[in-house]
Amino acid sequence: MELLKNLNWRYATKKFDTSKKVSDVNLNKLKEAIQLSVSSYGLQLYKVLIIEDPAIREKLKPVSWNQSQITDASHLFVFCNYTDATPEAIDAFIKQTAETRDLDLDRLNGYGDFIKEKLQEKTPEEKTSWLKAQTYLALGNLLNACAELKIDACPMEGFEPEAYNKILGLNEQGLNATVIAPIGYRHKDDHTIGQLKVRRPKEALFETI
Amino acid sequence: MELLKNLNWRYATKKFDTSKKVSDVNLNKLKEAIQLSVSSYGLQLYKVLIIEDPAIREKLKPVSWNQSQITDASHLFVFCNYTDATPEAIDAFIKQTAETRDLDLDRLNGYGDFIKEKLQEKTPEEKTSWLKAQTYLALGNLLNACAELKIDACPMEGFEPEAYNKILGLNEQGLNATVIAPIGYRHKDDHTIGQLKVRRPKEALFETI
Repeated sequence: MELLKNLNWRYATKKFDTSKKVSDVNLNKLKEAIQLSVSSYGLQLYKVLIIEDPAIREKLKPVSWNQSQITDASHLFVFCNYTDATPEAIDAFIKQTAETRDLDLDRLNGYGDFIKEKLQEKTPEEKTSWLKAQTYLALGNLLNACAELKIDACPMEGFEPEAYNKILGLNEQGLNATVIAPIGYRHKDDHTIGQLKVRRPKEALFETI
Repeated sequence: MELLKNLNWRYATKKFDTSKKVSDVNLNKLKEAIQLSVSSYGLQLYKVLIIEDPAIREKLKPVSWNQSQITDASHLFVFCNYTDATPEAIDAFIKQTAETRDLDLDRLNGYGDFIKEKLQEKTPEEKTSWLKAQTYLALGNLLNACAELKIDACPMEGFEPEAYNKILGLNEQGLNATVIAPIGYRHKDDHTIGQLKVRRPKEALFETI
């Protein structure tokens, strides 16, 4: 099975080869995989920054626990959730749905109202948690797409979101940095290559009822 | 590219064929894909219930917005996050890492302390959000594995977590239902088969810097 083979191939790359770059053709495939991610109601209330600029990455490194992947990888993906699900965002989604599926907008507006009502039931903390969680589905697709293309990646939560927000001007756009992933190609001297995977045993992870 | 082909094949299945069951061989592959999911520090602080029992699913349906997939699908996957990251869980992870990689436990204990310290920096709300988010990486792998095996699925947040916790006795196990996915095979009369996907345009989703 391809996915299992790819999941076993990948690992959280600690040392990237600075001389190797991910091609534009492959970057487009990665974008496609992220774009096709599922999300709650299909809203995709996030944005993904793909950072190539070395100067910006130098600034991000000290607020990323000084991890070398930030500057050494080919590209740095920064997943940012919108900090609110605005009525305008729901309306835009409903409009796009009507256009894409050639449906009557009036027939869909009730669904838009339903989504808005449901979101009002969430506390601010629940809404933040819900918005952040969706970006992990996009991150997962990036990692799986990378693995299939034999591109290395390192999913990371070890960074300071508020510092990222400031450096990248995210607050002004209503965004918040949630999770990041440098991608590129492993350095042959990465001492973590070939380390056995540590995963919770199936007996602990699963229960069939 | 296999993943893109699979992501385009899948859709959020609204009507399942009640006569078709997912085989044990395939269920094992799905478990494998979930087990191989990445997670923060590799902790995987979640459990996945695979519910086949029709009586329990009848009870879950009314607290799942009465959606028919709950009872009609072959199996119902319920992703549950642990509501806390206990020192014992971190210790167990460190011990497993030492055993798996044949490393000196004393050499790894510092890393365990580091994880514990980092988790103490999180507010209770941040910790809950962080624990929930990890289950979305596992959900994503389930969906991708299903798509490769031509098994249909419907990721769902439309259910009452507290009612699930009560019916499934999750609180007593320190668990909380986060997100669910009925899986099985599409009914040929599902009116949503073939609907065009609605995804935010690439210009809105991505920014290259």
